[in-house]
Amino acid sequence: MTERIREFLRNRREDGPCLVVDREVIQDNYIKFARSLPDTRVFYAVKANPAPEVLSLLAELGSCFDTASVVEIELALAAGATPDRISFGNTIKKERDILRALELGVRLFAVDCEVEVEKIERAGLAASVPLADIQVFCRILCDGAGAEWPLSRKFGCVPEMAIDVLEHAHRLGLRAYGISFHVGSQQRNTGSWDGALASASQVFKACAERGIALSMVNLGGGFPAKYLKSIPAVEAYGNAIFEALSKHFGNHIPETIIEPGRGMVGNAGIIESEVVLISRKSADEDDIRWVYLDIGKFGGLAETMDEAIRYPIHTKHDSDRKIPCILAGPTCDSADVLYEKEPYFLPVSLEIGDKVLIEGTGAYTTTYSAVAFNGFPPLKSYVI
Amino acid sequence: MTERIREFLRNRREDGPCLVVDREVIQDNYIKFARSLPDTRVFYAVKANPAPEVLSLLAELGSCFDTASVVEIELALAAGATPDRISFGNTIKKERDILRALELGVRLFAVDCEVEVEKIERAGLAASVPLADIQVFCRILCDGAGAEWPLSRKFGCVPEMAIDVLEHAHRLGLRAYGISFHVGSQQRNTGSWDGALASASQVFKACAERGIALSMVNLGGGFPAKYLKSIPAVEAYGNAIFEALSKHFGNHIPETIIEPGRGMVGNAGIIESEVVLISRKSADEDDIRWVYLDIGKFGGLAETMDEAIRYPIHTKHDSDRKIPCILAGPTCDSADVLYEKEPYFLPVSLEIGDKVLIEGTGAYTTTYSAVAFNGFPPLKSYVI
Repeated sequence: MTERIREFLRNRREDGPCLVVDREVIQDNYIKFARSLPDTRVFYAVKANPAPEVLSLLAELGSCFDTASVVEIELALAAGATPDRISFGNTIKKERDILRALELGVRLFAVDCEVEVEKIERAGLAASVPLADIQVFCRILCDGAGAEWPLSRKFGCVPEMAIDVLEHAHRLGLRAYGISFHVGSQQRNTGSWDGALASASQVFKACAERGIALSMVNLGGGFPAKYLKSIPAVEAYGNAIFEALSKHFGNHIPETIIEPGRGMVGNAGIIESEVVLISRKSADEDDIRWVYLDIGKFGGLAETMDEAIRYPIHTKHDSDRKIPCILAGPTCDSADVLYEKEPYFLPVSLEIGDKVLIEGTGAYTTTYSAVAFNGFPPLKSYVI
Repeated sequence: MTERIREFLRNRREDGPCLVVDREVIQDNYIKFARSLPDTRVFYAVKANPAPEVLSLLAELGSCFDTASVVEIELALAAGATPDRISFGNTIKKERDILRALELGVRLFAVDCEVEVEKIERAGLAASVPLADIQVFCRILCDGAGAEWPLSRKFGCVPEMAIDVLEHAHRLGLRAYGISFHVGSQQRNTGSWDGALASASQVFKACAERGIALSMVNLGGGFPAKYLKSIPAVEAYGNAIFEALSKHFGNHIPETIIEPGRGMVGNAGIIESEVVLISRKSADEDDIRWVYLDIGKFGGLAETMDEAIRYPIHTKHDSDRKIPCILAGPTCDSADVLYEKEPYFLPVSLEIGDKVLIEGTGAYTTTYSAVAFNGFPPLKSYVI
């Protein structure tokens, strides 16, 4: 909670929950990433928070952008990024969207299979872009152990297949540029990059044996935001990654990219919400207390799914005794419960109408919110 | 799939996934509910699909409306419903929203605890509405066994507490009107209403002993839409409910209300989507196939959460051999996987670019879709 956010909320008069994001925190985060990984280009993961003010700040600071769709590419361009600072990082792309990205000047694309490479080749020919100008990196699978929002096998292929995918790109005339992986979102283990970099270096060697010189490793995201548990500093990630790079690549350390999203904007945002109801399910005073907020799983807190992300929550009663509560959202959907399996401790003096501050909500909140579920509007957002 | 939807899709030229809803199917459904439960008032659950054309059709047919928020009340009024045909059915309401509802003429409110009753009393006084004109019904907990989208304990209280809640309303001068419950969404067991009605009749008796004459039972929703498994006809639900009412209330059958949402609009809608990518995670041909669509969990198919709802999916290759596939959405979110634990059988001949028709998607799709996750726009919808 920054003084600037506190001041903004003091003066706010509008009704309903809102997210307030402090640009100064994002600026600090960017500088930390840039200093802790000095030879690495930062590609901010736009999906984490695509607010125009966030993107323009990062563009000014020199950040590059990892995008998931043509709309996100357009947002990055509108924020002042040149196309050479934009990566189309989604491995799942319509061919016509690749064509559109090429027309917009983007030349860096993620793939994880041969048919995706072929889409890029065809789009390149259709756009009359020299194929050798189009850089393709292949995502490999990574186990994601230690991540609080672990990844499925949805993206990436096994490293052996990545060699074939990159060779396919090379033979078609595209530039086989490198490897990417993702160690899992909200990754609190700084050692997680080691195993993935070992695999990446094997792919580099195998490609070199086939006459293909890869030059880039995209280290992905995974950098955590501070929620309830403590997290290592960005410097610790920088050191661990540098060590792992040295260990696996020796004197031939490749170009590197990171894609922080949560780690860049998560701690910059606070959601202000309101207690709508406090009740019990029976007259028994020992029965657990239910606390209902005016924001829930469909209003922006989707990452509470399976109770994965536990946000720090503050109220004006923080110094009072706390009791276990089930925390739920305002909709008529019974799945709209935030914390139940592991109840959340909230002040016994909490009352209906009290404001509740949900910290660490700068990432993956506004854009997850439903367009109008139960008639509730999407989460309002202010970047200050 | 109706001929009208087929014709509409044949002529559609726009890009991206869309939902098409056939008004004629909704009309048929409404008539079935009205005939199968002739003494019951139908309150359509607006949250299932609040498209203006859907609401105006149902308003014309004589339906009442179950609403979850002031926005939904305004939608129902705009569609032509008079306020006496609107229930504010959310048990979690801000006091200022109750006040606004009263100002709009709504007089029927759900509660599940005493503090919610007190909000209604204060709002009634503030709105200068005679308290005796405000009807309050108390929701009781129900086990939801047999439902495919079972309810948590989020809404309702134990029946013993409901007696106190209703007495509290009565003493404050409000009209203690009745009991509601919900047997669980997509409830395929027609016998599920029996246990809840037994509890309701006990509350009626206990209230009568305290001098309070309840008169209404809100039987809730739960009526299923046809997905992959077969479902009983609406008539079977009508018969089972009538039998249970007779069994528990004898000659004093109360007024009744039903709140179908999914059962009213689910089978009226089809989502047309497109295959964006088909791939494997390794070069092994026996490795499971991944099929990625241009719609996923954040684009409208939120009810695939935990693989709860399994939609029927059709393609032009339906007569071909089918193989197990993992079905996923287009976003860079690893949680955006529709069916994986239990893979979905799709034609071996399915190709990138093929259209895919997802049936039974008229309910709980458009409004669940994220406002802009990964830059993807919310689900487009057409009511024909």
